[in-house]
Amino acid sequence: MLAAKRVVVVGTGLLGTSIGLGLKRAGYGGKLVGVGRRERTLREAKERGAFDEVSTDVARATQPRDLVVLATPLSGFPAALDALAASAVPVTVTDVGSTKVRVMAEAAARLRDDQPFVGSHPMAGSEQQGPEGGRDDLFNGKPCVIVAGDADPDAMALVEALWHMLGMAILPMSAAEHDRAVATISHVPHLLSSLLVHLGSGRAALSVASTGFRDATRLASGNPAMWRDIIEWNRGEVVAAIEDVKRALAGLEHCVAEGRDEELMQWLASAKSERDAWLASRAGIKREEGGE
Amino acid sequence: MLAAKRVVVVGTGLLGTSIGLGLKRAGYGGKLVGVGRRERTLREAKERGAFDEVSTDVARATQPRDLVVLATPLSGFPAALDALAASAVPVTVTDVGSTKVRVMAEAAARLRDDQPFVGSHPMAGSEQQGPEGGRDDLFNGKPCVIVAGDADPDAMALVEALWHMLGMAILPMSAAEHDRAVATISHVPHLLSSLLVHLGSGRAALSVASTGFRDATRLASGNPAMWRDIIEWNRGEVVAAIEDVKRALAGLEHCVAEGRDEELMQWLASAKSERDAWLASRAGIKREEGGE
Repeated sequence: MLAAKRVVVVGTGLLGTSIGLGLKRAGYGGKLVGVGRRERTLREAKERGAFDEVSTDVARATQPRDLVVLATPLSGFPAALDALAASAVPVTVTDVGSTKVRVMAEAAARLRDDQPFVGSHPMAGSEQQGPEGGRDDLFNGKPCVIVAGDADPDAMALVEALWHMLGMAILPMSAAEHDRAVATISHVPHLLSSLLVHLGSGRAALSVASTGFRDATRLASGNPAMWRDIIEWNRGEVVAAIEDVKRALAGLEHCVAEGRDEELMQWLASAKSERDAWLASRAGIKREEGGE
Repeated sequence: MLAAKRVVVVGTGLLGTSIGLGLKRAGYGGKLVGVGRRERTLREAKERGAFDEVSTDVARATQPRDLVVLATPLSGFPAALDALAASAVPVTVTDVGSTKVRVMAEAAARLRDDQPFVGSHPMAGSEQQGPEGGRDDLFNGKPCVIVAGDADPDAMALVEALWHMLGMAILPMSAAEHDRAVATISHVPHLLSSLLVHLGSGRAALSVASTGFRDATRLASGNPAMWRDIIEWNRGEVVAAIEDVKRALAGLEHCVAEGRDEELMQWLASAKSERDAWLASRAGIKREEGGE
């Protein structure tokens, strides 16, 4: 169970709202506080039942020994961290940010010594936005990366308990390891998804596109401002992963152009078996359906 | 309604079985005949209720004025076309093949003058395989490209009636136009999907991957032999589309590396609005769900 008597979620969009809804569903008995900038969004999140109280002021909303979760876009983190530091309230802080090296550095530079920070990246989300997209099972069965940084074991245990309560599998990692991994499996797939839409745009191509294209491009419907932040905060690893794609694509193009069709089939077959094995091992995200 | 008294489907895998199931569901009153090589697959397709009769012999299964649908992988087309020609039975022939220029050429070279061929590409499918993956609503609400070739209006009308009965929207196109379009919205997305799996393979990356990666790589779980055929039969357009991706990726990499973050956001935002508008216009394939 979660030892903190109060959880303060800063940012009441899709992820923040889903944290509130998920904790309620899991039977969390403490108080859930939502902090945001826009009154309308706060009201919606509260009406959806995600929070007991809402506030536009981080410092005033926070009490000693609270667990604070940063769930704004990354560009909102510095101001939220500064506000927490200025409040001088001893709290444990974590986040849901999609990058970790810079987040850990910002937290270390801004928070007080009695405000331990544990980095988190729950691998769940949606191309939807806002409180109305929140779901009480959004995190259930999915992995959550935890980066310890300089945090003490109590802070670690508290943050792990939060994600456990939401049904997540904890994956401890270094911030650098995390940022490299997400560049490959999340950030670059997102960019490729947008790139495929641009290539199909304004041509006969889109009229023919069907379920396969829909799934291959789903990530492109994500929030552009949020993704600009993510790419900005993980620039080096994203560029390195694009280089990996370019190398692999050049090899693939030669294979296709030179008619090495059996080699191509082996390459397709090994990708298929790798993916099928991965999917079979991950019951929480297993769900497939048709496409062309 | 479909004027042909019998429909002969050559190839009783996922697509062939779905044609049989879909026609039954739509109230088709004629006879449905499934033709395949493997007794077990034929039996499964018949037990699922997709066909009234099954056979391993195209020539013997076919009667004058039948509508014949080729639903094997592309590499099976030449032999099936030759068997139909050898049977000397006057039938109308169509297919479900994912490429059209070479399919139209093979049909023109092999079939008799009293065996008109209309090229079809129903934009529906699944990463699943075999009769057990067949669904009576697989084609419903999705587009179907039709290539007239040299076929007479009666043959065209018959083939259009088939796909209409299965709930598809007909898109007339030239074979060349089709092959260019599918290279962009289907064949290259398939290759990129496999490429992303290979890049994530054997690293920490896959342990972090979640619903976004699942959707971005769904196509990679398709049948490797079928996809080898598709790439082989559309080699020129696939290589051209890979070149398009390489150019776009180089531009994107510079934008990211040079920190032109507002430009990146505009590029992400225009992909998002393009995709959202496309999806809104296509009720038949509209279905989204969460991802990171």
